[in-house]
Amino acid sequence: MSLAQEMFAIAPAEGKANLTAAQLKLLAGKARWIFRVGEAGFPTVPTIAITRAAWEALQSERTRLDTRLRTHWIACLFKLVGKDGKAPMLAVRTSAANHNSGLQPARTGIAAPTAPEDSVDPTRPLAKAIKQAFESYGFSQGGWANFRGEDDRARQIVLIQAAAEGELEQFLTRNAATGALGPAPLNGAPLPRLPESIGSLISLLDAKAGRHMACLVAIQKGKVQFLSARPVQASAAAELEAAVDRVQNKIWSPHNAVSRVDPNRLPQLLHPRIKSTEDVTPIATGLGVSPGAASGIITFSAEDAARLRARGKHCILVVNETGPADIEGMKAATGILTARGGMTSHAGVIARITGKPCVAGVRTLSVDTNEMICRIGSRELRPGDRLTIDGSDGSVYLGTLPLAQPHIGGNIGTLLGWSDASRSIAVRTNVETVESAATALSFGAEGIGLARSEHMFFSPERLVALRRMILSEDEEARSLAVNGLVDFQTGDYSALFSVMGGLPVTVRLFDPPLHEFLPRNDEEIEETAASLGVAVRALRLRLERIAEVNPMLGHRGVRLAITYPEILQMQMQAVIAGAREASERLNKPIPVEVMVPFVSTASEVAWVRERTMAIVANSGLLKSEKVKFSFGTMIELPRACLRAGDIAGMVDFISFGTNDLTQTTFGISRDDAPTFLTVYQRKGIYERDPFVTIDEKGVGEMISIAIQRGRAANSRLKIGICGEHAGDPVSLKFFSGLGVDYVSCAPYRVPVARLTLAQAAT
Amino acid sequence: MSLAQEMFAIAPAEGKANLTAAQLKLLAGKARWIFRVGEAGFPTVPTIAITRAAWEALQSERTRLDTRLRTHWIACLFKLVGKDGKAPMLAVRTSAANHNSGLQPARTGIAAPTAPEDSVDPTRPLAKAIKQAFESYGFSQGGWANFRGEDDRARQIVLIQAAAEGELEQFLTRNAATGALGPAPLNGAPLPRLPESIGSLISLLDAKAGRHMACLVAIQKGKVQFLSARPVQASAAAELEAAVDRVQNKIWSPHNAVSRVDPNRLPQLLHPRIKSTEDVTPIATGLGVSPGAASGIITFSAEDAARLRARGKHCILVVNETGPADIEGMKAATGILTARGGMTSHAGVIARITGKPCVAGVRTLSVDTNEMICRIGSRELRPGDRLTIDGSDGSVYLGTLPLAQPHIGGNIGTLLGWSDASRSIAVRTNVETVESAATALSFGAEGIGLARSEHMFFSPERLVALRRMILSEDEEARSLAVNGLVDFQTGDYSALFSVMGGLPVTVRLFDPPLHEFLPRNDEEIEETAASLGVAVRALRLRLERIAEVNPMLGHRGVRLAITYPEILQMQMQAVIAGAREASERLNKPIPVEVMVPFVSTASEVAWVRERTMAIVANSGLLKSEKVKFSFGTMIELPRACLRAGDIAGMVDFISFGTNDLTQTTFGISRDDAPTFLTVYQRKGIYERDPFVTIDEKGVGEMISIAIQRGRAANSRLKIGICGEHAGDPVSLKFFSGLGVDYVSCAPYRVPVARLTLAQAAT
Repeated sequence: MSLAQEMFAIAPAEGKANLTAAQLKLLAGKARWIFRVGEAGFPTVPTIAITRAAWEALQSERTRLDTRLRTHWIACLFKLVGKDGKAPMLAVRTSAANHNSGLQPARTGIAAPTAPEDSVDPTRPLAKAIKQAFESYGFSQGGWANFRGEDDRARQIVLIQAAAEGELEQFLTRNAATGALGPAPLNGAPLPRLPESIGSLISLLDAKAGRHMACLVAIQKGKVQFLSARPVQASAAAELEAAVDRVQNKIWSPHNAVSRVDPNRLPQLLHPRIKSTEDVTPIATGLGVSPGAASGIITFSAEDAARLRARGKHCILVVNETGPADIEGMKAATGILTARGGMTSHAGVIARITGKPCVAGVRTLSVDTNEMICRIGSRELRPGDRLTIDGSDGSVYLGTLPLAQPHIGGNIGTLLGWSDASRSIAVRTNVETVESAATALSFGAEGIGLARSEHMFFSPERLVALRRMILSEDEEARSLAVNGLVDFQTGDYSALFSVMGGLPVTVRLFDPPLHEFLPRNDEEIEETAASLGVAVRALRLRLERIAEVNPMLGHRGVRLAITYPEILQMQMQAVIAGAREASERLNKPIPVEVMVPFVSTASEVAWVRERTMAIVANSGLLKSEKVKFSFGTMIELPRACLRAGDIAGMVDFISFGTNDLTQTTFGISRDDAPTFLTVYQRKGIYERDPFVTIDEKGVGEMISIAIQRGRAANSRLKIGICGEHAGDPVSLKFFSGLGVDYVSCAPYRVPVARLTLAQAAT
Repeated sequence: MSLAQEMFAIAPAEGKANLTAAQLKLLAGKARWIFRVGEAGFPTVPTIAITRAAWEALQSERTRLDTRLRTHWIACLFKLVGKDGKAPMLAVRTSAANHNSGLQPARTGIAAPTAPEDSVDPTRPLAKAIKQAFESYGFSQGGWANFRGEDDRARQIVLIQAAAEGELEQFLTRNAATGALGPAPLNGAPLPRLPESIGSLISLLDAKAGRHMACLVAIQKGKVQFLSARPVQASAAAELEAAVDRVQNKIWSPHNAVSRVDPNRLPQLLHPRIKSTEDVTPIATGLGVSPGAASGIITFSAEDAARLRARGKHCILVVNETGPADIEGMKAATGILTARGGMTSHAGVIARITGKPCVAGVRTLSVDTNEMICRIGSRELRPGDRLTIDGSDGSVYLGTLPLAQPHIGGNIGTLLGWSDASRSIAVRTNVETVESAATALSFGAEGIGLARSEHMFFSPERLVALRRMILSEDEEARSLAVNGLVDFQTGDYSALFSVMGGLPVTVRLFDPPLHEFLPRNDEEIEETAASLGVAVRALRLRLERIAEVNPMLGHRGVRLAITYPEILQMQMQAVIAGAREASERLNKPIPVEVMVPFVSTASEVAWVRERTMAIVANSGLLKSEKVKFSFGTMIELPRACLRAGDIAGMVDFISFGTNDLTQTTFGISRDDAPTFLTVYQRKGIYERDPFVTIDEKGVGEMISIAIQRGRAANSRLKIGICGEHAGDPVSLKFFSGLGVDYVSCAPYRVPVARLTLAQAAT
């Protein structure tokens, strides 16, 4: 017999199966569970399996009028016959590795063949059912263009079972919503009455499969006979609870639990989500830029959003794009929907900070605030109409869909506790407000890896101060504006250091790409002019002068510190004063890490380092032992990667900003990418969105080069990753292999990183 | 005596100087020419030299009341005494390696010391003059913080000469304007009457120095005695003519001439320039983005410029920034001055293409077209006022300064002919119009290395067609718009291929960063709407939708070809039809090289290659042998450099686009860089502007990596450089070391590249 030509009993009517190693390998899908349950001694319906290769060989033998294989086949069928020697009625089942809806449902009530030739004749009931079962696999289970696919196809199996006697009943091994050990109802059907002995079957299957299983049994006179089982997808919460339960019952080791929970599913536990999308179709799709689902009344303005919120109503703020003037409206809204913008758009950034679900860049959406109407495709919607958005996948639905609130319990904490035991890479978070820091701490963040100072200005009164600084015409005006910021900032840093309770905090020096902080439309310009006390005309002129063609590659990051040293001076003054306050409040030293962003040359690092160290030395803070100060740089440009050897000698740490590094390595503006990224993915140009999963071959090599050169020049160099990739499991596994010291991600991604890094460590 | 403690005769009154090797090394400045002329046997005033080290040792000996060195010094002074044994009157001269205005002028009429102690006593005339001469060197001749500087200082020399008898006369060895062998007048003074024997001195000096020399002689009774000489800077034209003349007179080999002409000075020969800026001060400075000088009446509009031109008047178009609507005005103007924009701004690009001098990004300039006034700093200027701009260095002057028109003659051709003999790297040009191609050919371009197809649309009627394509709402509209372009393009390519007469032409696939091609202000939007036949409101909506945050990193280059394959199809159709026409006209095959821009992955190259090759194959053109077709890609993103190994297997050639590669490697938008680049250079963060001279340590390493990986994967890979750095001498020397096959630069830079690459080859 050639490879995979196999026909054998997996649960014989009498005795044990005694499978060969080759046969064990063929046990895909249900076959596996039937074999294991039977092998464990639980009463199981007699079952035999035949591979496609064997079935095709039987058919080919028929045309040659040979009977050698058929004889073997009939001997195999006899394994279904019990002690009484009576041929049972038969059932034919598929047993695919992955369930799909095209598979033939079980055929039952098939009479056993009465003549040897009937057993292989596809016009007779048994052979016909087997033939159709194989046909229903189709070619979907893997490509058919390569040998590997052909081989897999030959190994597909079909099961023939003796008919079970008694009532057939279905149930789950664990509760689909809570994860508690079953029996539990399947698909909302009432739970059948089951004898007590079902408990041992459930425990057996749960231990063997380690997943929620849908189970089919026959019950006759209180006796249970096992027919079949297949895994079902439970909610993330239920799977997590089941994993913890298995550890507590010594079925799994903590290590098993850590390695078997999918990190991608954790965020679902931490945000509201749509209960079911089975019977609904999105009316539009954009980019899910801030996760979670939200339902509410459509509103087009910040004022309406605030009014609705005051009346306790949920609303979705629908705009073409957001700007600084919309921040209060975004805070008041339950969710945000925009026509333009991407992951790093103003809407995306603010939504993630404030934890609001947000769908951005819906190309078919346009908002006409004059007519108080918005169009999504050909639909016209008005204030008061309802929408549901899913900021995790970018879907937009008409009406209010039921949402599920997070059900966490202590299980996630338990699992992550186990994770931490086998993890060596630290997990920090990217936050700059006390609220987000508290959230991140509750998720287990071990410090702040990226506090984006400029984000501390996302409130109307702060924004005026920041704009005054950016719009200054000369050094004197800038110094005045800058001084107006010191008090704000000191309080901010003091509060942030305090809430972190002595954990390290990385403060990134100011890095405001201008376009994110300046007024855009007429109304905003008029407001800003009024608040700054300048003429609208003068403000417009100034705005025109400082407007940039490509602000992402413009006058930002370290360039700002070097051209306007008074900003660096102010910021360091505030950081130092904040650290002093926090240190006194906590009565312990504050680990402050100052990080200079967007460098491309070692000379930039040297320049900022010299001035920063002078300011710190002058403050006397180091001697007082109130801070543990370190200085580092953000590596987010290709040139900085190449020159990491020069840079490393001057810094205590480097942290990779993978967002900007991806933008510059690929030459793609993340904000503008949506216009071609979908086409690129459809045409297979990109396997994955490089802004979601790190591009190992390009950006990844850049990072590798930098780490290798940096470590060679400074063996004590601490290395981190602080782009959004630090919250993506596939990317985290790659970073883990590079030997970084820490990663820093959004608060809601901290659990994902903790779990993924534990998996990667083992 | 310690190192450099030397006192010796360089032209003794009697006999030969017989210098040691150490003494020969000390001959900086005038000393060198005095020694050489004397050594050659031409009557020369007796001269001795003393180093600072020796002078200081003499002074130190005085305090010790020792006389050993002084005895030696007096012996040395006696070398100035002639046969008659009478002590002559003396002169003291500095002899610095580089002339500077702080040096003490010659002190003459000094009586010889009458007592030995007088010869070193700084209160006595001779020693006082020597002391002051050394003091006048200051510390300016090199840093004084390092040993090297100290050492150089010890080696500085002062000359003591016997007074010459007769009339002192000054003249140049060659004419400062024409380069013809002298005697020629110095600084516009009338040429003195000189005896015929002066000819041998001039020939002698010209051969020894190989530069224009200012010469000082004493003439008594028709006899000439040489005193001193120093090199002077002549015009580029004069130096070139002198170099060629020396070769023709067998003083130099052609190789000497090639290696001694500074390539940076050639462009001055090819553009008008300001005759003299000695007595004028710029009223503003911007970026010189298109070389050459221009004078004219200020005008603020294209119409006025056209009107003035029609009346034969020169004008300078002064605007805040230029856009497509200004193209006719720019063509009509003599020069262009803008308040905003940089090297790659619309103004810069068009100005270089049309050969108009242009100064851009003058931050102190603002234009108010309503009040018909422009302000430069605190000055208010109106139409009719006159300005002179220098597009080579970015200066703006009030009024009309006299300009010098290029004086080329056949010398530049002769020199470049010699260059070509020792050059192995080909020089191509970046052009797309027949006019520019003809210019480049006249400068010796060996092909087109970069024809930017989108630039063929910089005329009003073409622009409408291009905008129709960009603004298309769907594929059908786009196909219609695209078809409207085929005829334009076919004619363009046919003409371009024809004028190049069978030299290779690299056609870059469309790469229009959107912001450079779309209407911006209200007026342009209204005009565009009218020409496209759409409502202004609809056009605005469309413009808002496709507006990009960072257009340089947006939907351009290969991304356009992949998302809108109909554009690729149209362009290839036009290229093929154009090549067919040109081939028939010239009756020879056309070497067409198609280059896909802005790739970051090998998959992009594969996708475009497959479609491009299919279109070419379908055309039947390859079989007809009317084209020699090759396919390549532009490497201008860091990721493409890293993946060059994957890419190289699919292409015949790669060409580095160093402008974009510098932008992405540094993360700097060239358009926005001026706001911090000047501060960066002032603070020493950048040694050089990386957009002018290639950054060897960063961008250079990127290129090296790509070349190494590309060649390893495809040994027949042809490699070029087509960024603006390909016209910069320092960068060209670096590229030459990388082993590229060709460079491609702006037409006016072709001679620079030919000369530099010849120098680098030897």
